[in-house]
Amino acid sequence: MARQERALRTRNALIESAAELFDRDGFETASLAMISARAGVSNGALHFHFASKAALADAVCVTAAQRLARITDAGEERADDGALQMLIDTSHALVRGLAQDVVLRAGFDLADGRESTGAGMDLCARWQDWVGEAFERAAREGALAQGATARDATLTVVGAVAGFKTLGVRDPAWLSPETLTRFWGLLLPRVAGEFTLEGLEAAGTQAGKEAPWF
Amino acid sequence: MARQERALRTRNALIESAAELFDRDGFETASLAMISARAGVSNGALHFHFASKAALADAVCVTAAQRLARITDAGEERADDGALQMLIDTSHALVRGLAQDVVLRAGFDLADGRESTGAGMDLCARWQDWVGEAFERAAREGALAQGATARDATLTVVGAVAGFKTLGVRDPAWLSPETLTRFWGLLLPRVAGEFTLEGLEAAGTQAGKEAPWF
Repeated sequence: MARQERALRTRNALIESAAELFDRDGFETASLAMISARAGVSNGALHFHFASKAALADAVCVTAAQRLARITDAGEERADDGALQMLIDTSHALVRGLAQDVVLRAGFDLADGRESTGAGMDLCARWQDWVGEAFERAAREGALAQGATARDATLTVVGAVAGFKTLGVRDPAWLSPETLTRFWGLLLPRVAGEFTLEGLEAAGTQAGKEAPWF
Repeated sequence: MARQERALRTRNALIESAAELFDRDGFETASLAMISARAGVSNGALHFHFASKAALADAVCVTAAQRLARITDAGEERADDGALQMLIDTSHALVRGLAQDVVLRAGFDLADGRESTGAGMDLCARWQDWVGEAFERAAREGALAQGATARDATLTVVGAVAGFKTLGVRDPAWLSPETLTRFWGLLLPRVAGEFTLEGLEAAGTQAGKEAPWF
């Protein structure tokens, strides 16, 4: 294995290990010694890659932002089905990601929390902006119901997904496809125009069920 | 001041001080020394009242549960306007409470977090049960729209309020009356039957704007 490749693997192992410990114990409690031990590397190797715990948290947020971008990019590729189905599918991919991918989950937790870094804030803002643009695209497509605005729909979807993530820490049922499907099933008849509604699947289309990072 | 009254005041000061530090620094970071100093009492006095930080966290959750009960009780007293308006008003009172009352906010944070105690879990469960019962009452009143179920409406409202609380840590606009009013404005035409809808105020009625703990 080339030196550079080995260094990249070590760096990635440290990011995964940090995300696992931030997720399990919280940012404040997780120690650099535990993170390096879990990644199977020395303390010196950790400090070669990251100057501080804050730098590691930043790297977790940047990696999470890359994974979020893959999820939203995969959604954009299926935008032919219309912006609303793209939104539903992408929210399902994100919720599955938050349930299964500890880096994505830790990235959003850091973004929400007190310790949050610039990278973390960016992650949250990107998701909110993406949802906002998708609802505005749906409005331009004439897919929104009368009286439903992109702005109100955005805050409802961003708020509910953030709540399902928070509540899912204690009870995984909140961060399940079933909960999200029920949420969309309730919301869609209010948000989608009559003719658009018929073609929409609250549970996501098959394409939406393929997580891009698997 | 009688001895018993003084003891009660000290106990309440410690609960307020613990809530403030849990809220500002997180449960793990807040120290018993900082909590007693902020409350203006000795370490010995703290240990007279609370055996551990976990015991203090329990007391914060129990106090928060009492305040939540006052909010929901005040809602019940206005149930003559119908269960849906009671729900809207009570959610506004809770959101105002979460924005302004550090004990209520810290109680819910402890309930959502990793450190959470039995008392914390109970707090979350009580709010969810109360919302569920209110929507079921609305269903019995014939106030729900066709196709809208109490169960789906409950998970949407509980999820969104939890999300507004989480997102509000970084940006207070999320935990504002305006955000909640926009959310209800979007949701109500889907959840409320046609004739019920006319009489509902998404921003809450005047009665709903009086916080019971002021």
